[in-house]
Amino acid sequence: MFFEGSEKKIELVVEAGCPPLRSLGYPFWHKVVKAAEADILSTLSNQYCDAYLLSESSLFVWDDRCLMLTCGNTTLVNSALLLEEHLGSDNIAFFSYQRKNEYQSQLQHTSLQQDLDKLRSKLPIKAYQLGYLDSHHHFLLHLDKPYTPAKNDITCELLMYHTQGPAADYLRSTHQTIEQIRALLKLDIILPDFELNDFLFEPFGYSVNAIRGKDYATIHITPEQHSSYVSFETNLNLGGAHAYIVKQLLAILQPASWDTVGFNCQPFSPLSAVQFEVGKCTQPLDCGYILDFRHYQHLQKTTLPTKQL
Amino acid sequence: MFFEGSEKKIELVVEAGCPPLRSLGYPFWHKVVKAAEADILSTLSNQYCDAYLLSESSLFVWDDRCLMLTCGNTTLVNSALLLEEHLGSDNIAFFSYQRKNEYQSQLQHTSLQQDLDKLRSKLPIKAYQLGYLDSHHHFLLHLDKPYTPAKNDITCELLMYHTQGPAADYLRSTHQTIEQIRALLKLDIILPDFELNDFLFEPFGYSVNAIRGKDYATIHITPEQHSSYVSFETNLNLGGAHAYIVKQLLAILQPASWDTVGFNCQPFSPLSAVQFEVGKCTQPLDCGYILDFRHYQHLQKTTLPTKQL
Repeated sequence: MFFEGSEKKIELVVEAGCPPLRSLGYPFWHKVVKAAEADILSTLSNQYCDAYLLSESSLFVWDDRCLMLTCGNTTLVNSALLLEEHLGSDNIAFFSYQRKNEYQSQLQHTSLQQDLDKLRSKLPIKAYQLGYLDSHHHFLLHLDKPYTPAKNDITCELLMYHTQGPAADYLRSTHQTIEQIRALLKLDIILPDFELNDFLFEPFGYSVNAIRGKDYATIHITPEQHSSYVSFETNLNLGGAHAYIVKQLLAILQPASWDTVGFNCQPFSPLSAVQFEVGKCTQPLDCGYILDFRHYQHLQKTTLPTKQL
Repeated sequence: MFFEGSEKKIELVVEAGCPPLRSLGYPFWHKVVKAAEADILSTLSNQYCDAYLLSESSLFVWDDRCLMLTCGNTTLVNSALLLEEHLGSDNIAFFSYQRKNEYQSQLQHTSLQQDLDKLRSKLPIKAYQLGYLDSHHHFLLHLDKPYTPAKNDITCELLMYHTQGPAADYLRSTHQTIEQIRALLKLDIILPDFELNDFLFEPFGYSVNAIRGKDYATIHITPEQHSSYVSFETNLNLGGAHAYIVKQLLAILQPASWDTVGFNCQPFSPLSAVQFEVGKCTQPLDCGYILDFRHYQHLQKTTLPTKQL
């Protein structure tokens, strides 16, 4: 049983003076989600944000921007094209499209190159590959248009592979409860005062959207043995005041390898004697962000899995 | 510019009493090579073996067995099907099919699963995946039939990724000579008394077949920056008397990561303080071999490449 936990991701900011994105309403965003071949499960809102929990990951909509992550075999590039068509390219101030390190990219409906070709048929796009193709790597595409992010506009991603230990075992088990998962992940400590909207999938798998004022965080857990993946994304500064969240999640989920991605920040990874930064790179983008990608490995000297096909 | 250096590989042994494989002659083996969409460049023979140098890697034919490696976008599974059809499945004592860690498996004509399905339509096949899909891994398929290899029947593979340093730079340059490459690789030291047949590709890339009595070795160099790959395969014991070859090649080619694969042997990798065995596994096969796979990494703490697409 294989499920690609690794997400594709789009982020889009509209030009000042555009109608608020939230005012486009549920039917519009439902159409955007459908374009990726996903569904809306439920919604959590506060004064600033509508946070949609999806059958495959999450959509966050603020008045001036939106953020959509979709895992599995979703076709997120089609959501991007729909947004471009509806908003008009002149009204887009910033747009980015990411593909993270995938376990089996050959099983996706489209390759990165095909996604890039589709986007370039509508928008001027700059595209980067960070890291080596035979090791963890990251693809970042962005609208080739000058943009100046606000000083506090940062994004941090922590992407964990091959989770191990008691929490990982529990997340693979068949008798989970949402309460127990929240307790295992210590959500009350890492995301205090956040409102949570979470979902437990069958037979396993867990997603949570969390919002607190203008802050957001989202966690998605794909627990399958041999292809487990847990992502954490937030606009909290994981390279500064909130670095303890990385430490906490690494201690709980014990990944064999993990990546960090930062936009205008550098998530901090605490390292032990058997945990190593395998490689890193930093790419200044013409759209005003500095992109930071790092790949880490736990050197376990343990037996690798052998799987009969 | 991308070229997949990583090879697919078949090895086949015929039952005692079958006509010698070498007697099938050049036209037959030409057809086998064509089935993989490759060409024969030249041939080197001795008392035991015909060693064909191919446009994409190598074919070795002995009277009782053959070994074929093909890189790039070749369709080696079709050569396997042609061999099965010509020889008849009852006459095959042993058959294996490997796919090594590929940079961009999504660019191949067929996936591992499609190759497996094709082979299973003709032969009972057991199949294994060794290692994690998001890190270096190896696929081994074999005929599900009892077989007892001779005691000295071993195979060692050393597969090097991201070669660096002066030799790697030279191998990427545009004014190479065969003599200089032989000298750089110290072929006179690592393969003394072997007869060599080598080829320098345009604009770069190098292949050599080497035979000495019943011993063989083959080296294939794909030097492209960001996707470089060098393979060394031999029936010399790289875990015993010939372990110095591994040390020599690692010192010359300075790969950022490398794998070893052994059939009834365990190639030895010398490790420094910044070179690590990331993982290993050993799989006993019902066809009489013990398969050993290990993945190594040079922890460089250097900047990863960023590539504009």
